[in-house]
Amino acid sequence: MPDDKNISKSSADNNAPLGNTSVVRVSAPATVANLVCGFDILGMALNDPQDLMEVRLLAEPVIKIKHADDYDLPVEPERNVAGAALIALQEAYEKKVGFEVLVNKSIKPGSGLGSSAASSAGAVVAANYLLGNIFSKPDLVRFAMNGEKVASGVKHADNLAPCIYGGITLIRSILPLDIIPLSAPPLHVTVVHPQIEVKTSDARQILRKEVQLKSAIMQWGNIAGLVTGLLKNDYELIGRSLEDVIIEPVRSILIPGFDEVKINSKEAGALGGGISGSGPSIFMLSKEEETARKVETIMKNVFQKIGVEFRTYVTFINQTGVKLMPGE
Amino acid sequence: MPDDKNISKSSADNNAPLGNTSVVRVSAPATVANLVCGFDILGMALNDPQDLMEVRLLAEPVIKIKHADDYDLPVEPERNVAGAALIALQEAYEKKVGFEVLVNKSIKPGSGLGSSAASSAGAVVAANYLLGNIFSKPDLVRFAMNGEKVASGVKHADNLAPCIYGGITLIRSILPLDIIPLSAPPLHVTVVHPQIEVKTSDARQILRKEVQLKSAIMQWGNIAGLVTGLLKNDYELIGRSLEDVIIEPVRSILIPGFDEVKINSKEAGALGGGISGSGPSIFMLSKEEETARKVETIMKNVFQKIGVEFRTYVTFINQTGVKLMPGE
Repeated sequence: MPDDKNISKSSADNNAPLGNTSVVRVSAPATVANLVCGFDILGMALNDPQDLMEVRLLAEPVIKIKHADDYDLPVEPERNVAGAALIALQEAYEKKVGFEVLVNKSIKPGSGLGSSAASSAGAVVAANYLLGNIFSKPDLVRFAMNGEKVASGVKHADNLAPCIYGGITLIRSILPLDIIPLSAPPLHVTVVHPQIEVKTSDARQILRKEVQLKSAIMQWGNIAGLVTGLLKNDYELIGRSLEDVIIEPVRSILIPGFDEVKINSKEAGALGGGISGSGPSIFMLSKEEETARKVETIMKNVFQKIGVEFRTYVTFINQTGVKLMPGE
Repeated sequence: MPDDKNISKSSADNNAPLGNTSVVRVSAPATVANLVCGFDILGMALNDPQDLMEVRLLAEPVIKIKHADDYDLPVEPERNVAGAALIALQEAYEKKVGFEVLVNKSIKPGSGLGSSAASSAGAVVAANYLLGNIFSKPDLVRFAMNGEKVASGVKHADNLAPCIYGGITLIRSILPLDIIPLSAPPLHVTVVHPQIEVKTSDARQILRKEVQLKSAIMQWGNIAGLVTGLLKNDYELIGRSLEDVIIEPVRSILIPGFDEVKINSKEAGALGGGISGSGPSIFMLSKEEETARKVETIMKNVFQKIGVEFRTYVTFINQTGVKLMPGE
């Protein structure tokens, strides 16, 4: 990617505008939506993997998408998640501007790790920086939700909010949008991405439209427990609350090895975990890094045995969200 | 009630046992179950009204129930909520003991303010004290749940837990029982008890056994928001989260004046509120005492206009739960 000496100091000062910068590079983190029991309302940013993007401000009102990776994603702005997000931002901006975006993805599309959210969020955070940071974080989430709609047909924010805010976020409500950052104790995250395809739209369609009231009560007990455990740094409570009686029993059927990974990881000391977003990635939380590494070994063993290609990550919660990158 | 000089200093030292005490007096607070969006998982203790009970340890394995009030409640131990709770405690105790209970209720049965829970909780906390506090709080909740089963047919703990622990409690799970006390900022509570009959069992029967997934998602967003608001002392978030899209729309039909009380109270500055337990009492939370008093006036006006007898309380969260009383 091209250099830009003007932004070489920007990563440390939390996205403060830098005058007449016309190009900016950002990193956008992978995210885990749902966090087991918080379907559609909780999300967490990961430190690894992250996408890299370069966004250039243009005087003409066009949007150009280029890819530096091999994922063969669409380049027409309306069909590209970053493009759709930037169109929404462009429409909200008073003057005519355009953007040229170069995307270099490390978060594989379809992994369940918020790949589309990273592209949408990275694009609008970068564009906002180039315009002098005039839009708020909730504005940026709203723009980026148009990207999510392109990707999955649904304007959800449970990947976007943590991608933009960092950390763990609660989306109390979509309409009106109400995002609440949640503090959390240090947590190690182990992720396995089995290389099978689970489309978000398919993963949504297999869910029942109605749920048993008694199951819903168990679910909201666990959600309240998880939020309390996070805010009170209570690892045991976090572990006890990481149960999903509604979504996981249906969706986990699509992921071979899921039960074995979960049971063995908890036996090895992991607090708990489950499907990342709509899958197929599986994540597990651990208090100690040593446990997180044991979990990685367990995941490798399970998928090697099954004979499914996979990729693992041992990482932690990303607290910054989309971040400006120094020039080279 | 009879005197007992032995327990005259006991109220200050948080229920510490006092040797060979054979009789004890306790106060047991009213409670608000559900807290709008937390159906079956949240509850809050009130400072007013409270029941008074006197419990005497007997050497013979019998349970005797007497009433000092006019509510004409059953005295057969198996049919009395305090009696049923004490039978469970008696069965768990290694030696043969009995209890004589004198109940003086201020919390009207059928008010939706945890009247049965106060009797059950008061009885087992007093009995445990007389036995040297050998049982834990979760044990006491488990015993007292047998009283709730007598009252409503369901072993629920959302009144019992706050009645025994004080404050606001989360019941993450009933089986296994997992009670988590939640901190909260100072809150004023206004309650109106319209003198109409809504049986808990009826209020449960009119609920649908299945709920829309999209409604459940809204509900758990609000529960997570409410818990976060309580733990972070965020009054605005508490207010925004006090919405119930599942239970209230069904149950509030049974309570004349409900909508008017709620709308007018929020216009007067209340954070929010709803049905207390299964009703018919309505509660509203306010940040300022002045607002709580305005809400009381609103409640009075509504029920005077409708022509329904009522009783109001302007109170606050009770932080101690069932408490030993000094002798007279």
